[in-house]
Amino acid sequence: MQGQSQQQAYDRGITIFSPDGRLYQVEYAREAVKRGTASVGIRAEDGVVLAADKRARSPLMEPASIEKLHKADDHVGVASAGHVADARQLIDFARRQAQVNRLRYGEAMGIETLTKTITDHIQQYTQIGGARPFGVALIVGGIENGEPRLFETDPSGTPYEWQALSIGSDRSDLRDYLEAEYEEGISTDEAVGLALDTLARTNDDGLTPEGVGVATITVDDEQYAEVSAEELEATLAERDLLASDDEDDESADADEE
Amino acid sequence: MQGQSQQQAYDRGITIFSPDGRLYQVEYAREAVKRGTASVGIRAEDGVVLAADKRARSPLMEPASIEKLHKADDHVGVASAGHVADARQLIDFARRQAQVNRLRYGEAMGIETLTKTITDHIQQYTQIGGARPFGVALIVGGIENGEPRLFETDPSGTPYEWQALSIGSDRSDLRDYLEAEYEEGISTDEAVGLALDTLARTNDDGLTPEGVGVATITVDDEQYAEVSAEELEATLAERDLLASDDEDDESADADEE
Amino acid sequence: MQGQSQQQAYDRGITIFSPDGRLYQVEYAREAVKRGTASVGIRAEDGVVLAADKRARSPLMEPASIEKLHKADDHVGVASAGHVADARQLIDFARRQAQVNRLRYGEAMGIETLTKTITDHIQQYTQIGGARPFGVALIVGGIENGEPRLFETDPSGTPYEWQALSIGSDRSDLRDYLEAEYEEGISTDEAVGLALDTLARTNDDGLTPEGVGVATITVDDEQYAEVSAEELEATLAERDLLASDDEDDESADADEE
Amino acid sequence: MQGQSQQQAYDRGITIFSPDGRLYQVEYAREAVKRGTASVGIRAEDGVVLAADKRARSPLMEPASIEKLHKADDHVGVASAGHVADARQLIDFARRQAQVNRLRYGEAMGIETLTKTITDHIQQYTQIGGARPFGVALIVGGIENGEPRLFETDPSGTPYEWQALSIGSDRSDLRDYLEAEYEEGISTDEAVGLALDTLARTNDDGLTPEGVGVATITVDDEQYAEVSAEELEATLAERDLLASDDEDDESADADEE
Amino acid sequence: MQGQSQQQAYDRGITIFSPDGRLYQVEYAREAVKRGTASVGIRAEDGVVLAADKRARSPLMEPASIEKLHKADDHVGVASAGHVADARQLIDFARRQAQVNRLRYGEAMGIETLTKTITDHIQQYTQIGGARPFGVALIVGGIENGEPRLFETDPSGTPYEWQALSIGSDRSDLRDYLEAEYEEGISTDEAVGLALDTLARTNDDGLTPEGVGVATITVDDEQYAEVSAEELEATLAERDLLASDDEDDESADADEE
Amino acid sequence: MQGQSQQQAYDRGITIFSPDGRLYQVEYAREAVKRGTASVGIRAEDGVVLAADKRARSPLMEPASIEKLHKADDHVGVASAGHVADARQLIDFARRQAQVNRLRYGEAMGIETLTKTITDHIQQYTQIGGARPFGVALIVGGIENGEPRLFETDPSGTPYEWQALSIGSDRSDLRDYLEAEYEEGISTDEAVGLALDTLARTNDDGLTPEGVGVATITVDDEQYAEVSAEELEATLAERDLLASDDEDDESADADEE
Amino acid sequence: MQGQSQQQAYDRGITIFSPDGRLYQVEYAREAVKRGTASVGIRAEDGVVLAADKRARSPLMEPASIEKLHKADDHVGVASAGHVADARQLIDFARRQAQVNRLRYGEAMGIETLTKTITDHIQQYTQIGGARPFGVALIVGGIENGEPRLFETDPSGTPYEWQALSIGSDRSDLRDYLEAEYEEGISTDEAVGLALDTLARTNDDGLTPEGVGVATITVDDEQYAEVSAEELEATLAERDLLASDDEDDESADADEE
Repeated sequence: MQGQSQQQAYDRGITIFSPDGRLYQVEYAREAVKRGTASVGIRAEDGVVLAADKRARSPLMEPASIEKLHKADDHVGVASAGHVADARQLIDFARRQAQVNRLRYGEAMGIETLTKTITDHIQQYTQIGGARPFGVALIVGGIENGEPRLFETDPSGTPYEWQALSIGSDRSDLRDYLEAEYEEGISTDEAVGLALDTLARTNDDGLTPEGVGVATITVDDEQYAEVSAEELEATLAERDLLASDDEDDESADADEE
Repeated sequence: MQGQSQQQAYDRGITIFSPDGRLYQVEYAREAVKRGTASVGIRAEDGVVLAADKRARSPLMEPASIEKLHKADDHVGVASAGHVADARQLIDFARRQAQVNRLRYGEAMGIETLTKTITDHIQQYTQIGGARPFGVALIVGGIENGEPRLFETDPSGTPYEWQALSIGSDRSDLRDYLEAEYEEGISTDEAVGLALDTLARTNDDGLTPEGVGVATITVDDEQYAEVSAEELEATLAERDLLASDDEDDESADADEE
Repeated sequence: MQGQSQQQAYDRGITIFSPDGRLYQVEYAREAVKRGTASVGIRAEDGVVLAADKRARSPLMEPASIEKLHKADDHVGVASAGHVADARQLIDFARRQAQVNRLRYGEAMGIETLTKTITDHIQQYTQIGGARPFGVALIVGGIENGEPRLFETDPSGTPYEWQALSIGSDRSDLRDYLEAEYEEGISTDEAVGLALDTLARTNDDGLTPEGVGVATITVDDEQYAEVSAEELEATLAERDLLASDDEDDESADADEE
Repeated sequence: MQGQSQQQAYDRGITIFSPDGRLYQVEYAREAVKRGTASVGIRAEDGVVLAADKRARSPLMEPASIEKLHKADDHVGVASAGHVADARQLIDFARRQAQVNRLRYGEAMGIETLTKTITDHIQQYTQIGGARPFGVALIVGGIENGEPRLFETDPSGTPYEWQALSIGSDRSDLRDYLEAEYEEGISTDEAVGLALDTLARTNDDGLTPEGVGVATITVDDEQYAEVSAEELEATLAERDLLASDDEDDESADADEE
Repeated sequence: MQGQSQQQAYDRGITIFSPDGRLYQVEYAREAVKRGTASVGIRAEDGVVLAADKRARSPLMEPASIEKLHKADDHVGVASAGHVADARQLIDFARRQAQVNRLRYGEAMGIETLTKTITDHIQQYTQIGGARPFGVALIVGGIENGEPRLFETDPSGTPYEWQALSIGSDRSDLRDYLEAEYEEGISTDEAVGLALDTLARTNDDGLTPEGVGVATITVDDEQYAEVSAEELEATLAERDLLASDDEDDESADADEE
Repeated sequence: MQGQSQQQAYDRGITIFSPDGRLYQVEYAREAVKRGTASVGIRAEDGVVLAADKRARSPLMEPASIEKLHKADDHVGVASAGHVADARQLIDFARRQAQVNRLRYGEAMGIETLTKTITDHIQQYTQIGGARPFGVALIVGGIENGEPRLFETDPSGTPYEWQALSIGSDRSDLRDYLEAEYEEGISTDEAVGLALDTLARTNDDGLTPEGVGVATITVDDEQYAEVSAEELEATLAERDLLASDDEDDESADADEE
Repeated sequence: MQGQSQQQAYDRGITIFSPDGRLYQVEYAREAVKRGTASVGIRAEDGVVLAADKRARSPLMEPASIEKLHKADDHVGVASAGHVADARQLIDFARRQAQVNRLRYGEAMGIETLTKTITDHIQQYTQIGGARPFGVALIVGGIENGEPRLFETDPSGTPYEWQALSIGSDRSDLRDYLEAEYEEGISTDEAVGLALDTLARTNDDGLTPEGVGVATITVDDEQYAEVSAEELEATLAERDLLASDDEDDESADADEE
């Protein structure tokens, strides 16, 4: 109780450190990420795979409008978890940066450079008062100099590169699974399967083609492409991940996905 | 009680997250939406239907001045629920955006693009301090490339696309009803009826032609059009929804509709 | 008591919602309106009538300096209730808007457009911090396209159109009276009588020609005109509303009228 | 006690209303006015009289430096009560407005227009945060179109017109006296006497020519003129108001006069 | 105790009045003045005398660096009491104003005008938030139109004219002494003696030539001139005010003089 | 307990000193540095060595993306400890300063000048409100005029020059070790070994080539160069520091490295 | 206890006075000065001596990087005590002012003028909110018109001139010693000895040549010059002040020197 009341004393804004050197508002923003449904990123030998749990809250909601996968540029995709409206801001920022890069230098922006431009933007919201941190994490994946690259941005504004990762709910479970199952050198197709296997672990009732989204960017064409519902259904059936029934989550309004 | 006092500690502004990653002020703004009377949106095969409960608080008040349905552009209508004055701000914003689009690109703005421009505007009020979130939700409906589209904006700044939805008071009841009764492929005329059936569920004494508003935008003419009081009366009578008497709600001043 | 302390927690500024989605500062501003003496507006067949209780606090005070009725433009009048100095700001704003409209478009500003310009201005003070809401309500009446129109603005920035209404002290009593006595199609002259009858209900000792103000704008000349003291005296006498003695209210300084 | 603690909760700034719709900081500013020594204004048939209690706190202080009467323009005088330094700001503001009017329109500014320009300026300090209200009230008197006019400005920014009034300490006593003694149609000379009689009621030991100030603006010459010490001594002696001894108030530093 | 806690509630900034209409921060700034050593000003028949207690806190400190007497312009001197660094700001302000006046109008600035320019500057710091009041009082003395003038500025921004006054520590004792001893028509030389007599009352061990400062501006040459140590020693000896020993005050660091 | 509550009272922002003259927020920022993994800097006879503990939190994370060593300019390297995103801001700042120096003066920026430019930037965040201090310490090393130089920046904005130092976790242990083992005149190669020995003291299970980073700038080529994984593995094996197994730390998300 | 809690109530910022007219934040900044190691300044017949205790916290730290003595211009030196990073800001400010003076007037800036420019800059941070006072004191010494001058700036922004003074830790002890030992007319060489004697009183174990810094500016060459380690060692040995062993202070990180 005392620990708690002490914690409260230092968590009212991003312009104060706690006595042990923590920024509580940034840590709480990470909780906002965990409130969102999971997204997964996997770097394959010949491409990058982004996948996201995008179950609708109602059968009347268009699954396509649940924004978890975003094309940032021809060769870059982004998967998000956490506060949806915040994610939109960062995606818009990323798209503008990528366009400016093409205009200014006449070439596609590197995945690492783009990621770090985003994290530097995020950092500003963790040091200067008058705003709150972004309550969202992003997986940024794409092809750079013919190589697949896969990055994470978190609410503190720290960039990390991964072979495979998950963000959002059940993060540590999914990460354990990925650490156990991921193997270097897997193909993009195998990575799509692994991504779906991973997401299935947060959905006891299985997955539906509409309830998940998968995108790939391969070394061959360097083009962001979303996997079609037909292909998804086939793959899910093949891996025995297909949900038996179309059930929707009865949860109340939520702005985290 | 403790939970409550903890909650209070993190709900004084939009620049702080709670320890569990929530933005209480955004959630409270959703309560402001629920305080407003209900609005309904339905996407039909050949058009979009917007409907709103607009009962007057006094027989001396002009029902036409209760703003729940708004024409945003020729081909776009908006139904609102929640804080009326906030809704006006967003509608004005939407109208200006639609006009700018016509001037700049010489064509009508897409429904999805318009919706996301609005939600990005809303998001700003949930991250930067010095203001409060918008206490209003909108249903944005219209025709885009010959297809009916129907979107929702909520106080967090998240856009969703729906086949049919309700916002405002009794939201979950009306949504259950819509989920049960809505069928893909219904005509605009049938959708008008379903919208009135849905609204009737929040009015124990039935509906009056002046107490509801209905607007349609059809694929045929791509024109926002409000259904006349005569037509409404006929439809209400036909569906046995007509109130037997013109009773007004004795509630005190309210700025949510 | 607990409810009260909870209420206090969310009522310190207009940038926070309460957990149930209310803006307490806007509601308190409505209380400021109720502290003001009553004003009445009635839409007649051939014009609009504005009337106000403007009793002086001392026999040495000039009744003419008690500002409750204002000419906003040739064809528009405004009656106010609440914080006098705030009312002056909004009237000045309305006058400038009306003048700009004449200069820019070469024609009189519509009553509805003018009202909504005012309410949008009021709304700004309910969402952006650093100021307080306007503690005043206005009745805006005038002729638009040959038709009498009558609107209300409240501290939330919501516009409403009325056939007849009262603002300020004893609002609900006077509204009940108006709902009972108002009839569509009454003449401007009859409406003047009804307005005085209504105001008399908040003055147990009757009315004096100096203690009330009445203005009309008729369809015929579209000119704001205040009824003379002689005419008022005659009408009051005729309706048996004339106070027997010139008593003044001994209340202390007040800035609400 | 509870009432008191509740009151304290809403009185810390001018950007919050109390639950009953009051602006406590404006009411406290009125208390600052009452802490000042009294000033009196009387409108006579042929002029306006301003009078002020300007007792020095020490025999070594120059009575002429106690600023209670101010010439705002040739035809306008101002008497103040309350915070002296605040009064100086408003007088400077009034003088600049009067000069601008002469430059822009080539004629003297009307007394009512000038007063309302001042009160609108005062109102700004009661709605926008970051400052406090003016802790001063003014009596503005002068000749407009050949007519004597007499106005009051209070800390809320409300203008009132009076036949006769007092501001500052013992306000209600002096007002009662004025209500009893004032008669319409009195001459400027008689008004000077009545003003001194009124001020004498707040000075048990009588008045001294140095301890009071009296100014007149008559219809004849439309010129602000202060009554000389000799004339004052004569008038005081004549009315038996002359203090027997030159006693000074031993009070500590005060910035209200 | 209750009074005290109530007082604390309203004394945290200059943008709030207390319920009895006081500005506590201005009153506390007056306490800062009282913490400073005394300064005295006397208006003589043919000049003005400023004198200040400027005892050093250590024998190693240069008495000349203790700033209590300042030349503001050729014909104007200022003596200060209170926060030294604040005094420097006001003196700089006064010097710039005097220079601007000479440049703009080609003549020396009047003493009264200069004083009121300073007090208006001080007032700003008592009404607008984001700063604190000046913790200093000034005695402004000089020759205007051949006449000696002597003014005081206090932290509220109120100007007063005096025949003789003291500011700083023991103010009321010294004022009593001045009221008893001052006589109109004394010469500048006599005023120097009276000033030293007055200052001696706050120094039980007598005065030293280095521990006091005296400046005069006479009608003859209208030039600010500081009295030399030799002259001071002679005068002090003559009046039997000379300290027997050079003792220094052991007090800790202080920024009030 | 009391001490603690007193401490809390002065640690909410960088614009307040505690009664004993401390800036708690700066001290808490130092705690953020201690939360980061260790970095070491050693000045050798012929070069400078920077080394950092950069263990990955997961085997799937790319060690290369853990930013602890940074090239600021050809001849300058920086090792960081603490908040990663903050470090990135300072590194970017340093790079821009170094580039500007080259453009403006046509030569490489001195190490001391660069360090002090960084610390002056850091100081701004410890005096002006509206932001928090940087939660990071830097070791800045390079060659200036043919001499190796090694500096530290801390969150207070103080620059220090060292022969050898460590920042981050276990700082005092590692410093004791360096004080005992460091000898003036050691070669860069020996310094690499000493740096690894030092880092090994914070890793009970030994070091891996991927889990550490080492960079050198030698007097010979004045070029920042990172030591390759092969060389690191050889050196670690040679010194018997090689970890037996590739274990990863199971700690939760952290933004300090 | 009560006194303490009252004190806390007024010490949270520089924009509020305490009831007894104190600025606690300025007083706390003085405590920050006392936390720094001592500096000494002595004015000799033919020059000025600045000396500082600059013991390193570790034998690995370069003593030269401990900034206590600074050359502000050819003819001006500054010794500091307190917050190092703050001192750097003021020194930079002083250097810029001195350079501007040379450019603008073609001559060296006077010591007194420079000091007062610094203190006026310091004062701004004690009156306007949004920042904290500078936690540093400076001794400014140099030659002006062929005369040695020696000034102090403190956190309140007050300038004082001294014959000899100390700032920082053990201030009052060292001052007592200086008051006892200082004699007017001593030579610069003797002053160096006295400065070392004084500093030795805060170092029980004696002084080392690296642990102290001494600078002189003589009337002859008007050039700031630091005394070499060899000369220091000789002088320390001669005066029997040399430490027997090179011990370092084990204190934790500190940003005051």
